[in-house]
Amino acid sequence: MRNLKLSPWSYLIITFVILIIAGSFFLMIPGAYSKGNLSYLDALFTSTSAVCVTGLIVTNTSNFTPFGQIIILILIQLGAIGIMTLTSSLYIFLKGELDLSHRIMVAKITDVFGLHEVENILVYIIKYTFIIEFIGAIVLSLGFYISHNTLGDAIYYGIFHSISAFCNAGFSTFDQSLVGTNIIIKLTITGLIVLGGIGYYVIYDLNKFFKSGGRLKLHTKVVLLTSLLLIIMGFMIFSVVESDMNIVDGFFQSVTARTAGFNTIDLTSLHNISKFTLIILMLIGASPGSTGGGVKTTTFFITISSITKVLRGENKIVVFKRQIPYQTILRAFALIFLYLFVDVTATLILLYIYDYNFLEMLFEVTSALSTVGLSLGITTKLTTAGKLVIIACMFLGRVGPAALVMAMLGREKKRVIQYPEEKVVLG
Amino acid sequence: MRNLKLSPWSYLIITFVILIIAGSFFLMIPGAYSKGNLSYLDALFTSTSAVCVTGLIVTNTSNFTPFGQIIILILIQLGAIGIMTLTSSLYIFLKGELDLSHRIMVAKITDVFGLHEVENILVYIIKYTFIIEFIGAIVLSLGFYISHNTLGDAIYYGIFHSISAFCNAGFSTFDQSLVGTNIIIKLTITGLIVLGGIGYYVIYDLNKFFKSGGRLKLHTKVVLLTSLLLIIMGFMIFSVVESDMNIVDGFFQSVTARTAGFNTIDLTSLHNISKFTLIILMLIGASPGSTGGGVKTTTFFITISSITKVLRGENKIVVFKRQIPYQTILRAFALIFLYLFVDVTATLILLYIYDYNFLEMLFEVTSALSTVGLSLGITTKLTTAGKLVIIACMFLGRVGPAALVMAMLGREKKRVIQYPEEKVVLG
Ligand SMILES: [K+]
Ligand SMILES: [K+]
Repeated sequence: MRNLKLSPWSYLIITFVILIIAGSFFLMIPGAYSKGNLSYLDALFTSTSAVCVTGLIVTNTSNFTPFGQIIILILIQLGAIGIMTLTSSLYIFLKGELDLSHRIMVAKITDVFGLHEVENILVYIIKYTFIIEFIGAIVLSLGFYISHNTLGDAIYYGIFHSISAFCNAGFSTFDQSLVGTNIIIKLTITGLIVLGGIGYYVIYDLNKFFKSGGRLKLHTKVVLLTSLLLIIMGFMIFSVVESDMNIVDGFFQSVTARTAGFNTIDLTSLHNISKFTLIILMLIGASPGSTGGGVKTTTFFITISSITKVLRGENKIVVFKRQIPYQTILRAFALIFLYLFVDVTATLILLYIYDYNFLEMLFEVTSALSTVGLSLGITTKLTTAGKLVIIACMFLGRVGPAALVMAMLGREKKRVIQYPEEKVVLG
Repeated sequence: MRNLKLSPWSYLIITFVILIIAGSFFLMIPGAYSKGNLSYLDALFTSTSAVCVTGLIVTNTSNFTPFGQIIILILIQLGAIGIMTLTSSLYIFLKGELDLSHRIMVAKITDVFGLHEVENILVYIIKYTFIIEFIGAIVLSLGFYISHNTLGDAIYYGIFHSISAFCNAGFSTFDQSLVGTNIIIKLTITGLIVLGGIGYYVIYDLNKFFKSGGRLKLHTKVVLLTSLLLIIMGFMIFSVVESDMNIVDGFFQSVTARTAGFNTIDLTSLHNISKFTLIILMLIGASPGSTGGGVKTTTFFITISSITKVLRGENKIVVFKRQIPYQTILRAFALIFLYLFVDVTATLILLYIYDYNFLEMLFEVTSALSTVGLSLGITTKLTTAGKLVIIACMFLGRVGPAALVMAMLGREKKRVIQYPEEKVVLG
């Protein structure tokens, strides 16, 4: 074992592959599926969708038996508990402890936290996850009970949707997702999505701030500001474009697009502008260290504020009285471009096979890549090749950004040779 | 006059506005149009399209009389002779000479050239333009004469298409553009497009290099490499996706998309992947200081090479043994993002008014914004509101990037207060 030197990001990938394949076999167990035979491809698709907390489906979740649904729920929970925790546990399992090199790796990923805080964070993630999910489940059960479900059903739905929402998984036991549910359910789900999507770093930092005071980290301020602005922006666009959408649904849809994936309205009837807005929200996604996907709020914030500041002629990017290193800015741009490249390439591949509208296919692929799970109905109609492309997108979208950031950090090198600067003409 | 302190980029904008409006009135002169009455909106559209060397049309150029066509040709030539020359001439006209502050401005825009070279370049641009157009006209006249035109017609077509091609204008006296023309014409046009699109800086630098030796500038190397790679890339994608396109047409279409706008094939029948490839090529566009539009080859090259180097963990962006300043990189990213933002916003506005497919509308808007002039047939069908949006796009696309780069250079400021660095977590 000692000679096997794997880079941190390969641990991440291996963990997810094992989890997905194990999940697909569990879903093939007789008695997990109630509508005839589940093909292995569909089991693999469902397992990938659950582990990558995407929520895209090729068969309705209601077609699984309670046993099958609980397998899906466990896969969601394991997948969502976070890249960090998961790889940490694997390390601990393999080496019997969280060794220094790994602790350094985690500290490097988080970047903003000191080395001594790493172990605290890991314990904190687990504790925090279960407390929130527990409270969510109670309120949701109440909501479902009010809507004329039996107490048993209400509790089951409550637990399932609490975990699914907090993990930003978007799986629902209902074929119409949350269309037609009451306001208690919609608002609780919204709250769980936000708490799950804001990222553990922020929660941890806020907790510390309120307990012992001091200064909030730049990361925390950026995440809170960006999340708030994005929710408002999405809500406003939907309000203008979709005249018959009510306030709660507009708000819900704005929150869920960045990356939960539940829906309370029929998406296919939306105007192109709303579909495009949803695509942008899906691309941005949740915050780092969260259960959500996308390029992440911080990445988006850094690129946008760099652009506005550069346009104003400034050459140092300062936000909240802190200077952002050029290195971080370039990484943010690189991440976004690579992400868009994968997104568009996958879309074009699918358009080569299937005859759909570009925007709708882009919607479906972005939903997979950003592990959102919203669908215009294309996914269920795909054949084998298409399903495999979507599976690849879900996997890449979940593991990719974190693996990429780890890889960039791991490869950091200093140039020994210095070259003179020379400009080129732009524009 | 002395108290009127306008920033350099406002000179640029004013010049273009005056030229466009003057052009629209000239086109309204009785006898310029042969098919009934030309509406003022259509005259404005045609004038904008000519001055901004776009080539999008709302009425076939053949509907203008030879007198009208010559007005269009003059507008193309004036618009194309270049932002730099034009604003310089205005300065000279207004102040009687090219003063130092203006010379500094031009030197700043070009960035790569010393102050003493500025006046040389301006003279050079004019000389170079007319020599190339003259040679092009001779060869093209020959080409048209071979295809059974009378000598008079052949010479007229030769001159018109030589200027239109070198200026990357894309206007043609034929309703089907260059569909069905012979190989001499296609190849000569391709050559003129490349020479016009590569930018005066490069031509000037190459000329100096071959005359007096020395080192080629980084700018020149970047432009030549990127242009070559883009032509090959476009050609290869078309070859794979469009099985019935011949080699000459594939090559022609790859060259013309970055921003000439002639076509030798019917574009509406192309596969979505080809349309998307054309959109990307249109977005990238020609090189700085050229007659073409788009974000420019250098901007594209810098972003792509920054991304690949950052992904490899390098923190200094070195190309051809020269380090690119962070400032230049951030400007390149800002330019691309702003460009995409305008492109998509205009597309969504048009989609709000008209019921078209997203990709096709994006194609049309990108064609206007990058002053390309390729069309899927939507532009001719637009009503007043749509025509105004397209006019705005052509104008913004032609003047925008240069004005933006000037504005950024003009606003350059040093921060006095230093703030500590702080990282945020990405991915
Ligand atoms: K999801
Ligand atoms: K053009």
